[in-house]
Amino acid sequence: MNFVEKLTGAVRENNSLVCVGLDPDLALMPDGIGVAEFNRAIIDATADLVCTYKPNLAFYEAMGTEGLQALQLTVQHVPENVPVIGDAKRGDIGNTARAYARALFDNFDFDAVTVNPYLGFDSIEPFIQYQDRGVFILCRTSNDGALDFQSLRCEAETLPSPESEPDSRPLFEIVARKAEQWNMYGNIGLVVGATYPDELKIIRQRYPDMPLLIPGVGAQGGELSKVVKFGVDTQRRKTIINSSRQILYASKSNDFAAAARQVAQELRDRINSFLSNTAS
Amino acid sequence: MNFVEKLTGAVRENNSLVCVGLDPDLALMPDGIGVAEFNRAIIDATADLVCTYKPNLAFYEAMGTEGLQALQLTVQHVPENVPVIGDAKRGDIGNTARAYARALFDNFDFDAVTVNPYLGFDSIEPFIQYQDRGVFILCRTSNDGALDFQSLRCEAETLPSPESEPDSRPLFEIVARKAEQWNMYGNIGLVVGATYPDELKIIRQRYPDMPLLIPGVGAQGGELSKVVKFGVDTQRRKTIINSSRQILYASKSNDFAAAARQVAQELRDRINSFLSNTAS
Repeated sequence: MNFVEKLTGAVRENNSLVCVGLDPDLALMPDGIGVAEFNRAIIDATADLVCTYKPNLAFYEAMGTEGLQALQLTVQHVPENVPVIGDAKRGDIGNTARAYARALFDNFDFDAVTVNPYLGFDSIEPFIQYQDRGVFILCRTSNDGALDFQSLRCEAETLPSPESEPDSRPLFEIVARKAEQWNMYGNIGLVVGATYPDELKIIRQRYPDMPLLIPGVGAQGGELSKVVKFGVDTQRRKTIINSSRQILYASKSNDFAAAARQVAQELRDRINSFLSNTAS
Repeated sequence: MNFVEKLTGAVRENNSLVCVGLDPDLALMPDGIGVAEFNRAIIDATADLVCTYKPNLAFYEAMGTEGLQALQLTVQHVPENVPVIGDAKRGDIGNTARAYARALFDNFDFDAVTVNPYLGFDSIEPFIQYQDRGVFILCRTSNDGALDFQSLRCEAETLPSPESEPDSRPLFEIVARKAEQWNMYGNIGLVVGATYPDELKIIRQRYPDMPLLIPGVGAQGGELSKVVKFGVDTQRRKTIINSSRQILYASKSNDFAAAARQVAQELRDRINSFLSNTAS
């Protein structure tokens, strides 16, 4: 089973587009609990409510060897039917990208990863060569800095351009278009932040079948109703809506796992209710 | 002493612009030697001939926990007067970028790192906040994929544009200009590949005082005479010319360290002879 099949299976089985971002922050976790133990409790409490988990490697790397061991245990603990996305945002030249792909797919055994497009095709090819895995290319990120380069209008002259379309467009649109051209194995998705709903709408409409990973709801302030309306194709439902801190740190006490379950369930149900409204 | 002072000190002391890229490849190393042992031998054999070392994290991550321990030992083994650049090419939103900065600067204690600009200022700010460390922003990389996005002409409308300059320019030039605007602590440098000498010339002329990290000579085919002519300001000499495989794998036998020393010395001397020709 490849990544997209596993993803759509989990979406259907759990009736959920929710991704829990497993981003450990010792200051927000209950005192005295280890990262692996914390994550296991979160996973046990939410595995029937989500379509994916997404640990961001930065938080584990910041804890050194111990953090990376906790990450390994975390990935192993996720039930077989729920895919795990390694949020690594790697990008390097071909030879080096191959080493990153080995680290992420062979060592950690992630079902999918995130990658950065700035270095172009040969930085992404080693990842998509793992044809049973997913590769989410950063397109429009959820942060303020997305405006610095991703929204610059660029000449699209190197792309085949139907006459009806303008010959200049924002960089993130060019990235999306390249991603589609590179998608020979059908395992490429895009990262589009919840905080830019208009851009999300453009991307979803143009590429209805491409999996979208959408960070930025909750703590980052993206409005959920717009994310669902603009970011989900109601037939295909290849959309992953990530929430990290809001779910993980719903409580700092011993009831943290139950509290996380409640927030995850509310998020799932709110998304599904917006979906019913959109579909009807 | 901050990174730029340490760099210029090593350049002067060793009369060298050479950086040795410490990218372990078990298939090319002598049989039976460990990565940390190999790197220690390379460092011992070349530390008086270089201005920096640059391990790329991908190759260590591909070896799992053991690889990262070898990386730690490697960084610790480099003499105090020679800076070490962690080639990590990280890029993530502010909160997450802070975690990466901790991993690279606090845990590994790199003197400088490489970062990816695609996510904009808030992805880079946590790194430059370590004001005694260096931050090399990817500008024009050495690979073929650099043409996919980095050379796209973009409207520079969000930048203050003197009338003498065009209102559109390649993305990598806009990145360089933003990098200069962000350089409030004087610790930002740029990565510009040896394989694009014309672009290198533009960047060096515009930003003569900014440290440039230049990969792509040697195995990747960048022409050394052009790199020196276009990439080095002979007064300031804030240019780092990286060679990895050519030096590390000069021999696969027991004499690998001596062979590496010889290639490093030849590279240093060839650079310096081109420099004398340029200066005169």
